Amino acid sequence: MKLSINRAAFIKALNTVSRAISSKTTIPILTGLKLSADVTGLVLTGSNADISIETTVQIEDPDNQLVISEAGNIVLPARFFTEIVKKLPMETLTLEVSDNFQTKITSGQSSFEINGLDAGNYPHLPEIDTNDSITLSADIFKEVVSQTVMAVSNQESRPILTGVHFTIDDNSLMAVATDSHRLSQRKVVLDQPVNGHYDFVIPGHSLTELTKMIADDQTNVTLLVTENQVLFMLGDTMFYSRLLEGNYPDTTRLIPTEFDTRIQFDAHELLASVERASLLSHESRNNVVKLTIDPDQQIVTIYGNSPDVGNVEEAMEPRSVEGNQLEISFNPDYMKDALRSFGQTNVNIDFTSPLRPFTLMPSEDGESFIQLITPIRTF
Amino acid sequence: MKLSINRAAFIKALNTVSRAISSKTTIPILTGLKLSADVTGLVLTGSNADISIETTVQIEDPDNQLVISEAGNIVLPARFFTEIVKKLPMETLTLEVSDNFQTKITSGQSSFEINGLDAGNYPHLPEIDTNDSITLSADIFKEVVSQTVMAVSNQESRPILTGVHFTIDDNSLMAVATDSHRLSQRKVVLDQPVNGHYDFVIPGHSLTELTKMIADDQTNVTLLVTENQVLFMLGDTMFYSRLLEGNYPDTTRLIPTEFDTRIQFDAHELLASVERASLLSHESRNNVVKLTIDPDQQIVTIYGNSPDVGNVEEAMEPRSVEGNQLEISFNPDYMKDALRSFGQTNVNIDFTSPLRPFTLMPSEDGESFIQLITPIRTF
Repeated sequence: MKLSINRAAFIKALNTVSRAISSKTTIPILTGLKLSADVTGLVLTGSNADISIETTVQIEDPDNQLVISEAGNIVLPARFFTEIVKKLPMETLTLEVSDNFQTKITSGQSSFEINGLDAGNYPHLPEIDTNDSITLSADIFKEVVSQTVMAVSNQESRPILTGVHFTIDDNSLMAVATDSHRLSQRKVVLDQPVNGHYDFVIPGHSLTELTKMIADDQTNVTLLVTENQVLFMLGDTMFYSRLLEGNYPDTTRLIPTEFDTRIQFDAHELLASVERASLLSHESRNNVVKLTIDPDQQIVTIYGNSPDVGNVEEAMEPRSVEGNQLEISFNPDYMKDALRSFGQTNVNIDFTSPLRPFTLMPSEDGESFIQLITPIRTF
Repeated sequence: MKLSINRAAFIKALNTVSRAISSKTTIPILTGLKLSADVTGLVLTGSNADISIETTVQIEDPDNQLVISEAGNIVLPARFFTEIVKKLPMETLTLEVSDNFQTKITSGQSSFEINGLDAGNYPHLPEIDTNDSITLSADIFKEVVSQTVMAVSNQESRPILTGVHFTIDDNSLMAVATDSHRLSQRKVVLDQPVNGHYDFVIPGHSLTELTKMIADDQTNVTLLVTENQVLFMLGDTMFYSRLLEGNYPDTTRLIPTEFDTRIQFDAHELLASVERASLLSHESRNNVVKLTIDPDQQIVTIYGNSPDVGNVEEAMEPRSVEGNQLEISFNPDYMKDALRSFGQTNVNIDFTSPLRPFTLMPSEDGESFIQLITPIRTF
């Protein structure tokens, strides 16, 4: 392999595939990145147990200043090679692989020789044996992920809960995540109906990395889903993630359909109050804040308490209060995550009883987005 | 104690004294910050084993919106109290201390009660029994510190070397730091001559915190030096640091007065080359780069090597090369620290032999600033 390339374009591609590369992998060759040069361009690949990323530096784009004098493949130490490329002195660099996978990197007067590995030993990318693709608006997809992924479980005890459950039918997409203490569900009506029925669970970590890679100027993302892999196509970049195996629990019956008490708040104002109350609950062994709701007086009060440090009390300003009087306790961190996902809007919070889960929904168009939180028994 | 105060002004003062407060102290009351209110204003104090900071929120400045209804003192948990003040909802807050050091903090509808401590148990600030003050330009002082403090030792085995040694005589100030592998010495001619002779060693950590506190609009810093304390006066803020005890070694004889080989470089260009070479030396067990100097060919070449990863070689572009041929090895991190402290300028690097310390000086006005580095024997 022998080529020269624009350094900035190369760094961009290196940063993209580096998202999939971990120095902590147990498979040594996966600490490397694979380079493959042929007539169409230079393909970079990075991979770990969950995700693989492949991106192409196109030969036809003149900005890439890509000249391939000799096709070939090599695997180079990813972190180290990326650092070298970032620090090279000139606008372009040349890369030349000689016998024994020795790779020479030159730029101006600077010349590195580093030890590469045989690309023949690098694992193959997953095979995607389907042509049925789903195309989603990039903005909507990012929003759906950001509104659900915070509710996935961090516990490996029930692996299926570490992912977001997607179901797609005709022109409706539903995404659900739950760690069994809270749940987030988002529904979207698709512009372009899809053929067939899809039901799959993508690991939360994969989704977090993926959404970081979707540039602001990206209009659409296209998915190909197989039995145990999903491929996202983002322009010159292919993002593969494994799917989680097993049956995702039926979450629809968890969401209450009625309420006895409803309060309405500006999400940002309520968030600020919960943040203040959680300052004290965080100092306490059990991280709990309490809400008392008095519909007669139209008063909602929040309390936080730490035996060591002190306590906080705040009479809040609801937009409205209806239904029965109630006193309920919950983990303020779940509430903060939920409220942050709404942005600047009014939310309805619907309660049935002090020990039953309660829901948060936007006051307008509530059906499309529901956050559910399980309260904590304190008596 | 009872007062109300502008929240932004209070947060600024809290951030200032928080620099001195560590949660890891062995003296529990020092995790707190002391508040003292009297007719002139509100005084905040934070302290640890090395430094104490005292700042005053002046009652006469209308921006502070400070109204003191009742004088008094209290010690409050620093980190926690600061977080509360930052999150309060309104522009002002009120603070009221009741019996048992219970402190009520209110702002709008939000009301915190936290447990304070008796300010009578808070340690007294060091006594500064001198009136002889030294006034320095704030910019010059910050520059002197930044050019020397990186050379202080991190090892507690010789405590005196963990500080910067200042000597002041008439209108000359000299600052020196060394960890015995490298040395940095800066000399300054003072605008205002001082009375008497000063010789003291300030801990490096204290200087680092201090320079962070000197605002860009600060013209001067004023020092008062006693046998074991130094006080810096910065407007409304007093910064106390203990001085290191013991005799600082005589460093003047360490600096070579002659050279056999001199190379001149643009500091930024040389820094970039050393950074590239150190990418490889950092992967190696002994972190060493090698320089070969050929005055006949006017060539200077830098080499880095790691048995596992590979090697780098770069022919650099010196401004000039004079004297004898030389091959010398050194720790590139010392060289990087030294070069960064010069900024954008030409530097002379003067060598005598492969095992003797070499110096870096600005090509113009070299006397005022010298960096010295001890080479490493590799043969």
